[in-house]
Amino acid sequence: MLTLHSYFRSSAAFRVRIALNLKGLDYDQIPVNLLKGEHRLDAHRSRNPQGLVPVLETDSGNALSQSMAICEYLEERYPEPPLMPESLEARARVRSLAMLVACEMHPLNNLSVLAYLTNELGVDEATKLAWYQHWVAKGFTALEARLAHEPETGSFSHGDTPTLADVFLVPQMFNAERFKCDVTPYPTLVRIATHCRNLPEFKNAAPAQQPDAV
Amino acid sequence: MLTLHSYFRSSAAFRVRIALNLKGLDYDQIPVNLLKGEHRLDAHRSRNPQGLVPVLETDSGNALSQSMAICEYLEERYPEPPLMPESLEARARVRSLAMLVACEMHPLNNLSVLAYLTNELGVDEATKLAWYQHWVAKGFTALEARLAHEPETGSFSHGDTPTLADVFLVPQMFNAERFKCDVTPYPTLVRIATHCRNLPEFKNAAPAQQPDAV
Repeated sequence: MLTLHSYFRSSAAFRVRIALNLKGLDYDQIPVNLLKGEHRLDAHRSRNPQGLVPVLETDSGNALSQSMAICEYLEERYPEPPLMPESLEARARVRSLAMLVACEMHPLNNLSVLAYLTNELGVDEATKLAWYQHWVAKGFTALEARLAHEPETGSFSHGDTPTLADVFLVPQMFNAERFKCDVTPYPTLVRIATHCRNLPEFKNAAPAQQPDAV
Repeated sequence: MLTLHSYFRSSAAFRVRIALNLKGLDYDQIPVNLLKGEHRLDAHRSRNPQGLVPVLETDSGNALSQSMAICEYLEERYPEPPLMPESLEARARVRSLAMLVACEMHPLNNLSVLAYLTNELGVDEATKLAWYQHWVAKGFTALEARLAHEPETGSFSHGDTPTLADVFLVPQMFNAERFKCDVTPYPTLVRIATHCRNLPEFKNAAPAQQPDAV
């Protein structure tokens, strides 16, 4: 059995839940409460010295970290249904769309960065929100420019079946809305995210549906 | 022929140069001067709307972006010599080490973030340097905890041949030293980075060796 150490609101854990659901895999979910600092306790640090979620324990007992590495593992270990296209350049496209979210957007707006802005730089709430919205706007503008114009875009980010690009897009859209970012300049992203959210695999992975949701 | 649109000091471009060298691939390098804003010109935006380097043009004329996506493409397109181990859980380990650098460290310290700190938040140089060093220390502490204790670590990050984990570690170590971060708390990282840097594939990829180095 697969075990996911997770936090309902973690965007990276949300990605892994979507991927697990799209693969049709059963898994246990063990909540790690980031606001209570449970990720800094030895129990969790022994699974991941970085103290982050998600961590996926595989059926052989290995603890895997980093959402992209976990998603690639799931794709290699459970190839059906595929979450990546076949052609190598198409795979590079899907990975680059996912990485745009994972490397250019999400890292700037996670809890530890927002805490540093408040505690070390002493910025006020409005400045912090402007920071958040700035990086969302920058990333989504680039993503919209690609998805609106590249011919490979379909009802999903790549063609007409869900891929890792959608697995990364949907949690980022959720965060953008939660932090009151204006998403009207990104109609293609909104269209794709809405299409995804109507599917049970995405719906059941959403933060509000998790056992630790408050 | 492969063409790499690059900037000598870009950490992400440095990764791709190492991967290309380790694969023994010939490539043309076209400099994009980030300090002069060449990445924001239409010529470059047409290759990558995000305006970032690196961009790899493949032999079929496709423009690939995001260093991890490019490295995975190179691994799939040119499998020899492999830059990832064979077993699925080992591959997840290598990817998670690379992603720790790509998602938790580098994004916080790139040019656009440092510019935001100065221009929008009005922080002084010392505060900006403290920010830089904070995220390097946080990431390297986690990476050292893993590499020093996990049995898979060898003369390289994973075993005794270079993998994508090393491809991502070495440019990050270069940046850390450039920004005067104390790396003595990370002896395993220093040992592995030093070992890598003695190899021509890493040495020839270094910023100072590039045609646009100043």
